[in-house]
Amino acid sequence: MKNSLLSGIQISTDKEDLICYSFDASIAESALPEAVAWPKNTNEVIRLIKYANENNLSIIPRGAGTGMAGASVPSANCIVLSFEKMRKILDVDTKNMTVVVEPGIVNRRLQKEMEYLGYFYPPDPASMNICTIGGNVATNAGGPRALKYGVTRNYIMEIEAAIADGKLITTGGRTYKKAVGYDLRNLLIGSEGTLAISTKICLKILPLPEDIMTLLVFFKNIEASGIAISKIISAKIIPRTMEFMDRFAIEAIENYKPTGLPLDIAALLLIELDGYPATIKKEAERIVDICHSLGGEATVAEDDMARERLWEARRSISPALYHIKPTKINEDIVVPRDKIPLILTELQRISEETRIKIISFGHAGDGNIHVNVMVDRDNKEEYAKGWEIIKKIFEITLKLGGSISGEHGIGITKAPYINMEIKEKELELMKGIKGIFDPRGIMNPGKILG
Amino acid sequence: MKNSLLSGIQISTDKEDLICYSFDASIAESALPEAVAWPKNTNEVIRLIKYANENNLSIIPRGAGTGMAGASVPSANCIVLSFEKMRKILDVDTKNMTVVVEPGIVNRRLQKEMEYLGYFYPPDPASMNICTIGGNVATNAGGPRALKYGVTRNYIMEIEAAIADGKLITTGGRTYKKAVGYDLRNLLIGSEGTLAISTKICLKILPLPEDIMTLLVFFKNIEASGIAISKIISAKIIPRTMEFMDRFAIEAIENYKPTGLPLDIAALLLIELDGYPATIKKEAERIVDICHSLGGEATVAEDDMARERLWEARRSISPALYHIKPTKINEDIVVPRDKIPLILTELQRISEETRIKIISFGHAGDGNIHVNVMVDRDNKEEYAKGWEIIKKIFEITLKLGGSISGEHGIGITKAPYINMEIKEKELELMKGIKGIFDPRGIMNPGKILG
Repeated sequence: MKNSLLSGIQISTDKEDLICYSFDASIAESALPEAVAWPKNTNEVIRLIKYANENNLSIIPRGAGTGMAGASVPSANCIVLSFEKMRKILDVDTKNMTVVVEPGIVNRRLQKEMEYLGYFYPPDPASMNICTIGGNVATNAGGPRALKYGVTRNYIMEIEAAIADGKLITTGGRTYKKAVGYDLRNLLIGSEGTLAISTKICLKILPLPEDIMTLLVFFKNIEASGIAISKIISAKIIPRTMEFMDRFAIEAIENYKPTGLPLDIAALLLIELDGYPATIKKEAERIVDICHSLGGEATVAEDDMARERLWEARRSISPALYHIKPTKINEDIVVPRDKIPLILTELQRISEETRIKIISFGHAGDGNIHVNVMVDRDNKEEYAKGWEIIKKIFEITLKLGGSISGEHGIGITKAPYINMEIKEKELELMKGIKGIFDPRGIMNPGKILG
Repeated sequence: MKNSLLSGIQISTDKEDLICYSFDASIAESALPEAVAWPKNTNEVIRLIKYANENNLSIIPRGAGTGMAGASVPSANCIVLSFEKMRKILDVDTKNMTVVVEPGIVNRRLQKEMEYLGYFYPPDPASMNICTIGGNVATNAGGPRALKYGVTRNYIMEIEAAIADGKLITTGGRTYKKAVGYDLRNLLIGSEGTLAISTKICLKILPLPEDIMTLLVFFKNIEASGIAISKIISAKIIPRTMEFMDRFAIEAIENYKPTGLPLDIAALLLIELDGYPATIKKEAERIVDICHSLGGEATVAEDDMARERLWEARRSISPALYHIKPTKINEDIVVPRDKIPLILTELQRISEETRIKIISFGHAGDGNIHVNVMVDRDNKEEYAKGWEIIKKIFEITLKLGGSISGEHGIGITKAPYINMEIKEKELELMKGIKGIFDPRGIMNPGKILG
């Protein structure tokens, strides 16, 4: 790969590297890229895109490869652009409460740096210890705190991005308001690298909440936990998180990383409040009352360490599940909040009928449930049955007014199902937009629109 | 206008109607439409679009015509679609905190209905007593409360809209999270009717805050008021509004609708806090301290009536200004918050140098200032000078990292300036998108992209 466009760029065609960068956290089929490049700055990103254009290669941008739908998995004839060398915080502007970063910065590091200054970057995907802000923007990543604080989209002020012809564009702005032209910024957010590759991102930050309170509530009845969620919100309390785990998810954690959670319950809720101490104390009391009235048993995490232990447990569910069955088909459906009890009941019924384990957990407060259909990929019959179940779950979800993806995106694995949710005309418009940004189709091909 | 497509649709070609629907609140040049139609439902909207297609007419959608940039002003060979007959609330879902409306519903009515149920729809443009939600969506309307609660964009969950070929599309969804395909919803929001016409809108609502506290602060020095804004936010207090008026704006109000505001001050801030009573009391004390330290004099509105009087005064500025000079060139620049003192000083300097009165007021908390250059349109020299000043103000604003429109949009009046802010490549992408939605260019032609 000798070419003046590549001069000074760290790039590898070693088989070991190609293999390491050929998969992500999803079960998407992997292909080997032609090369992996680690650009150090925007200029190198642009030169790589130009090189790809000249050599009929496509570009696969990659954050940390933690995606659940295969959006960073390579296809044939591509270069993977890994952002590991672009992870600087370029500017913190506390007066205007913004921070400018390179796309490769790890979410958790950004959070920690902001906390140190007394500020708060809310989006907290479960993979936050390694996932990158660039990847978060590409997938519009969520996380538990989305319930109160919204998803990544709500924190993106300005994106500098490279498009397919190697030109740089800037979308959004450094002001909180702006009403000038079409909203290209929101179009890029969640487009999974199929329209542009971000090279610099300006994010909004908030003042750090004064205090946090974490409650753990155990339920003997799964439906009661769903009703509790609805009742808490109806009481006009918006916790910053309201996480749900079913019995199987609790079992998986306790087998993998014992935390002392009880194994004789049907479900638990992990509820976190933040704000002024007096305010959240009042809200916590009200939540405890609501849960008690539904047979729930609530305890308050005593200190930061106890809280952190609970969250570590919550974040370990996904890896823990791999210990139960070789393959989990991991979905993240979302339904209107009041439909949570209904969908939980339906999932239980399907699992009983098909005798395939379905493990559910997730951000029940905003209706977003991670549904894991546990199968063995090598058992062809079981694996096929797993996918039938997924399709059935999608059908029920859509019938309830929900969506087939709350926060993981479409990538490769869900691309075959997108037309269950998005109608023909809307898909046609999306394809038209793709053609405007990337007429030759070199930007992360095969993702979202298939 | 006999055509089976129009059967049953209320439509007029009377000159009186054509004239009434030929202008809006801006100074955009008006043209007479061919007809004005008042569709009663989505089907009638679709049929009108089909009729327009068959007869080489364009479509100008219109809410209440309160736009400040001419987005609803007709051009030649068009039909105006007025949404006065589509103003129903179709569904209120308190469990999921959403409300579904027709586009013609008046903002204030929606707010009142939600308050009655204990809920809160925050966006509050100054014209809220008459402006419509459809128009708010088209322009991504803001308002004072945007400081804490964001603009219209932040409350739109789902839009059903008709596009240029008469097909209906649905964008967004009824769940709080969704990561499926490109974000067409945000593309429509703020597109000023140039991409699609909304026929049904699902909005997010919030629990009504427990209490509100309103503070009025007088400053003898204009720069001090700007610094106060920055210091309050730096103290990590986010009031729901932080409105600014300069001396001329106060004078204009007192001449038009006397409220008892002092005339010997340089500027005032109207600050409103909401939330739990104990919390906002603490925040108010801190704000009073900050303002005092800068020479500001603060008072608290004693009751709802006093508060409402202050807000009526604030909302009357815009009409009041018409009594000062026959023409106001009304802009709504926005700068990063910490640049407010700087821009205020610059505006004062320009006014002194050119001897043209510049009156400033607006949402200083988020950096959004309504700048009114007071001229007489019939005095050609003065009017031309007014536009030179506007261009100069835009230049300074952009140099400070700001934007030429915070919330009014581009419409017709600012279309000639859009390329001062949006670069060629981005404009090219926007034009490409316009072509995908509306290949024949019949949707609100001449707006935004000229």
